[in-house]
Amino acid sequence: MKKLLCIAVAAGLGLSMSAHADRLVTELIKPIEPAVISAPEKVELGKKLWFDPRLSMSGFISCNSCHNLAMGGSDNLPTSIGHNWQEGPINSPTVLNSSLFVAQFWDGRAANLQEQAGGPIANPMEMASSHLLAIDVINSIPQYREEFAKVYGSEDITIDNITDAIAVFEETLVTPNSRFDQWLKGDDKAITEQELASTLR
Amino acid sequence: MKKLLCIAVAAGLGLSMSAHADRLVTELIKPIEPAVISAPEKVELGKKLWFDPRLSMSGFISCNSCHNLAMGGSDNLPTSIGHNWQEGPINSPTVLNSSLFVAQFWDGRAANLQEQAGGPIANPMEMASSHLLAIDVINSIPQYREEFAKVYGSEDITIDNITDAIAVFEETLVTPNSRFDQWLKGDDKAITEQELASTLR
Repeated sequence: MKKLLCIAVAAGLGLSMSAHADRLVTELIKPIEPAVISAPEKVELGKKLWFDPRLSMSGFISCNSCHNLAMGGSDNLPTSIGHNWQEGPINSPTVLNSSLFVAQFWDGRAANLQEQAGGPIANPMEMASSHLLAIDVINSIPQYREEFAKVYGSEDITIDNITDAIAVFEETLVTPNSRFDQWLKGDDKAITEQELASTLR
Repeated sequence: MKKLLCIAVAAGLGLSMSAHADRLVTELIKPIEPAVISAPEKVELGKKLWFDPRLSMSGFISCNSCHNLAMGGSDNLPTSIGHNWQEGPINSPTVLNSSLFVAQFWDGRAANLQEQAGGPIANPMEMASSHLLAIDVINSIPQYREEFAKVYGSEDITIDNITDAIAVFEETLVTPNSRFDQWLKGDDKAITEQELASTLR
């Protein structure tokens, strides 16, 4: 894409490729980098919460139900199935690389993953719980109390801590080193000629 | 338990503990051993199928939905939620250590895990697919075709191969080295006096 935009910018400005355009483009589109994990215990706690259907009213739906890590981070359905088999109006976006989105939800109403994570828990069409109930449920599980105390310095579990842990886990869900990333980094042979042609179209 | 039964047998026969009673009891109750994985690619294939909701009619329910590995191998619900949010009459047993059960399902109607695995896929109250549809869906995914060819020597995917792979993955879901196992193996201090008293009751 760097190369692609270089060409586009250069063409648009009527210039040959320049160091300036190169730098400009580098700032626009970057290869995806591996996750840097600075708080492994928080990531593990977030991972537990991610897969835990007890965050839903039914005890049947987890974050992973609609953003399935076994299927590219989404549910592969036109619109998602929620509490009581309600088929809402929303197509689940993938969670993979979502930490790199400029905003969250299709309309961008959440600024970041932590803010987003609180949404589905309390949405009556989705997990159909409430923040109060979710906190009570998680608080009722001694192992969670221990882990929250270790990670956040307090056994007093809050929705902010729950969504923070989930968001920090989600930040690890990146897909570095795809062939496209390799191409961005300078390996001209990493994508096929057909793919290059599609990219340039 | 070995010890416990030794005591019981010895008491019942009016004998002091003997090598014979010891051997008899050893054959009745054994510590759980770690899984021995002889076909890692088959296990990986079974793991993918285990977490894949495309085995259900809706594309929303996987084996893991009701036997959740994040919650002790079960769904932690009185009775499970199935297709179209039907709440069936069945309480999901845990999948953990289920390879050691003498038979499968609550009424023991399946002889082994492979036979069991075909049940929920086609049960209209559960995953609500059919074996024919499940085969078609899995067949439609090129990566599965490749993996089945590698593991079973044929790209022609059958329900027997699907359930075999799932069963072989399930055989890895054991919980060796619990404190009870340690006690069985001779560590008298592995369980508390209260636990010992409960065991002997």
